[in-house]
Amino acid sequence: MISRNKAKFIKSLQLKKYRKLERAFVVEGAKSAMELINAQYRIIMVVATPQFLLKNEERLATGDFEIIEASEKELSALGSFQTNSDVLAVAETRPNVALPIREDEYTLVLDDIRDPGNMGTIIRIADWYGFRQIIASETSAELYNPKTLQASMGSFTRVNVFYGDLHAFLTPFKAPVYGAFLQGMDVHEAEFAEGGAIVIGNESRGIRPSLEPHIDHRISIPRYGQAESLNAAIAAAVVCDNLMSRRKR
Amino acid sequence: MISRNKAKFIKSLQLKKYRKLERAFVVEGAKSAMELINAQYRIIMVVATPQFLLKNEERLATGDFEIIEASEKELSALGSFQTNSDVLAVAETRPNVALPIREDEYTLVLDDIRDPGNMGTIIRIADWYGFRQIIASETSAELYNPKTLQASMGSFTRVNVFYGDLHAFLTPFKAPVYGAFLQGMDVHEAEFAEGGAIVIGNESRGIRPSLEPHIDHRISIPRYGQAESLNAAIAAAVVCDNLMSRRKR
Repeated sequence: MISRNKAKFIKSLQLKKYRKLERAFVVEGAKSAMELINAQYRIIMVVATPQFLLKNEERLATGDFEIIEASEKELSALGSFQTNSDVLAVAETRPNVALPIREDEYTLVLDDIRDPGNMGTIIRIADWYGFRQIIASETSAELYNPKTLQASMGSFTRVNVFYGDLHAFLTPFKAPVYGAFLQGMDVHEAEFAEGGAIVIGNESRGIRPSLEPHIDHRISIPRYGQAESLNAAIAAAVVCDNLMSRRKR
Repeated sequence: MISRNKAKFIKSLQLKKYRKLERAFVVEGAKSAMELINAQYRIIMVVATPQFLLKNEERLATGDFEIIEASEKELSALGSFQTNSDVLAVAETRPNVALPIREDEYTLVLDDIRDPGNMGTIIRIADWYGFRQIIASETSAELYNPKTLQASMGSFTRVNVFYGDLHAFLTPFKAPVYGAFLQGMDVHEAEFAEGGAIVIGNESRGIRPSLEPHIDHRISIPRYGQAESLNAAIAAAVVCDNLMSRRKR
């Protein structure tokens, strides 16, 4: 049984304001919770059904965090989603630390990705294609939003995301910067250097004009049909796939 | 001002049960509504703000449907989404008609895509890459679900989607059938015939084993990092992109 105060604390973390204030966030569901517990995050508490606790007893015993038993019903009432009601974990957010410039690998640069589902999906794509870091504009969807975390399917534990000024990041960046545009060089014909940055723009407005001077190569996904555009996460995946299949090493 | 009865009718269409019963559905937002009006759908009514009606007067005047003026507040109360509150259109659903086997182009085959956001995104991808038809298992997310329609960004008006038995479709299919699996031939090295079918499986379980005998080529998106899998719509996009870039013609 979870105390009223703790339930209130966990529920407050559905709001960004309290996530910032408490420097804490919640992940829901067995897969994400276990990935979090195994990653370099400081866990504050795990709330789970007796069945889940029994099944994961060994792994949980080694952790330095509070374990609270709760019914599925209590868990659903605490979480943001209707499903995933066997466990949730509360952890400390990580400080937003500037990422190093790495010119022998690729960094994803997100200019105002607003939808948390897209943000989480892009983190999962970065993790699949082996990108270790993402720089997102401060206007982009928050990493610790429950929808971002859910869409990332645990990949947020492996990809470093820094929110900051994209001009400041791109100005000293010497390796090639590629940007995804509706008009540009066919991505199927583009040549990709060993390392660089890929800029993905906002869902409806694309890359903001003031960033264009930083972009060395405008690339574009050829269209064979009639849709006006592709979803931002889809475009990111197609660019990453082309990049990794033909990148110079 | 919209009558109580009409408001009740429109709101009922948020539920699949009433969409089936009334053979009608709702699209929200200017882009989707105008694409619908310009497509081969029978429109029942358009509910819009006075500003929207004035701006689109000419196009709307040629239509054979009822036009109802409403405030933004009334429109938000009628729709499923918080935004998109300047117009909604109600149209008749199309009958679910079996699609022809086309062996000189590609058909997307969806085995149990459950999430309406993924379904809509895949329709948009099909439209971008020039696929004219999709066959979806009956367990797949519904075309007329508001989230499917929204994610498709108007592409549902251009791509034909048929819900039916995938065995019945694939049994007489003679062109190559490719299936996206976690283990298979590297999609970057795959050769693609002029026409065929691409099978995309369920978000968590993939393609069901009983469909495997229909699949001629198991293809797989190479993983360079650590994510366990890619989202189903992302996988569909990457496969379509590789296919279109190297398809024989």
